[in-house]
Amino acid sequence: MSGIQKIGLFDSGLGGLTVLRALNKILPGVPKVYYGDTLHLPYGDKSDAAIIGYSTAIVQFLKDEGCQLIVIACNSASAAAGKALVEQFPELTFINVIDPVVDYLAALPPQKVGLLGTRATVRSGAYSQKLAAKNSEVELHALATPLLVPLIEDGFLGTGIDASVLAHYLKDPAMKGITSLVPGCTHYPLLEEAAASILSGVHWVDAPSIVAQAVAKHWTGEHSEGNAFYLSDRTDNFLRLAEKTFGIDAQWELVRLED
Amino acid sequence: MSGIQKIGLFDSGLGGLTVLRALNKILPGVPKVYYGDTLHLPYGDKSDAAIIGYSTAIVQFLKDEGCQLIVIACNSASAAAGKALVEQFPELTFINVIDPVVDYLAALPPQKVGLLGTRATVRSGAYSQKLAAKNSEVELHALATPLLVPLIEDGFLGTGIDASVLAHYLKDPAMKGITSLVPGCTHYPLLEEAAASILSGVHWVDAPSIVAQAVAKHWTGEHSEGNAFYLSDRTDNFLRLAEKTFGIDAQWELVRLED
Repeated sequence: MSGIQKIGLFDSGLGGLTVLRALNKILPGVPKVYYGDTLHLPYGDKSDAAIIGYSTAIVQFLKDEGCQLIVIACNSASAAAGKALVEQFPELTFINVIDPVVDYLAALPPQKVGLLGTRATVRSGAYSQKLAAKNSEVELHALATPLLVPLIEDGFLGTGIDASVLAHYLKDPAMKGITSLVPGCTHYPLLEEAAASILSGVHWVDAPSIVAQAVAKHWTGEHSEGNAFYLSDRTDNFLRLAEKTFGIDAQWELVRLED
Repeated sequence: MSGIQKIGLFDSGLGGLTVLRALNKILPGVPKVYYGDTLHLPYGDKSDAAIIGYSTAIVQFLKDEGCQLIVIACNSASAAAGKALVEQFPELTFINVIDPVVDYLAALPPQKVGLLGTRATVRSGAYSQKLAAKNSEVELHALATPLLVPLIEDGFLGTGIDASVLAHYLKDPAMKGITSLVPGCTHYPLLEEAAASILSGVHWVDAPSIVAQAVAKHWTGEHSEGNAFYLSDRTDNFLRLAEKTFGIDAQWELVRLED
């Protein structure tokens, strides 16, 4: 057992890059392999069975690439496939994007917390169940906000329409009286500015940093170079946004996995 | 050769139901098989190679179901895979959703026509090239409007945000001075009301009816019952919208094809 020398991350597309960005701040110079399953994007509207199938193939690939720690950098996959992956790959260490945020929320004073997520994430009830088991005084109210991912992917950040759509969703009765709001999809942290323009007195939870800190606790390897970037479908949109929004001007290699 | 007895339609999801609805008006009581490739939705952001792969598997399935005429009820698939399908299945009759609309536009008086489509449709240049070959005085200007599909799928029809997003897209310089507007994606006809609220003096082209009329010209069979509905992924969202927006309360059977 040589410890953890390489970190793998995956998402259906761009969103996981918010986690990669946070991780690069805490663990710069650590080799990371990112797989964006753009061929099957978005996961958030797919069935659990489909998400488990895609995730299993990707984790096998990341394992073959030499990763010992896998960040499931997608809430839909964390909720739908997290348990199945841990069972199938007992030799790997998994960090999903839900548990570290639940631990963070469980340590807050009693309050009503809002959670925005994809249909798959909200349907799973993962955040609510896990939080209820740890601290019943922090009350979680989840809302499915499926337009937010395509809104971000299609370049509507900063147009004002992003704030209108967010405001439309936040009118939902479930969001009444919340004092903290969790971006429960790895794309949503990019909406922080739009949220700031319409929310006042509501704490926007910095989920990517919380997840990155959880990863950093497991890191036991040396710092060295050697990042790698893979996609299952090469789309101009992905490449454009990866560079424009995240400044990642990497060589993205096309690797299509069997479902 | 027993002529055309059964019609197959496919799309990545809901959009093709606008064509099915128009077809049901013109050819009620004709057996139709609909395949919604919800597992791979949306096609509009995928590469041509991926779209050709999915479409080929679906057409083989529809052929095995006894369809002799296939409506490629998706602009992205018509543009990316139309030619490949005709070559691979010379025994079948194909109606794509582009050619009938191009024929319609070519018969218009000289003017500037706007076309809204997915990235794949616009990237293909299919409408522009085909129209230019038939009538160079009807000038086509295409604009990629990728947020419109998820906007519709996520229930924003009639919220006012649909009109805001459409208005945002129509501010593009390419749309200046248009007198007709083509909904170049089978979802977009559902935006007719939103378009009416922001467009004045611009003719909204009724693409599904134009396509349905082209199909009706090929129909040579008897009228009889026996519709069938298939999906590659069972999602609550699809089933809800199929019923709510299209009144289709059918038994959708899950059939997953090999890519």
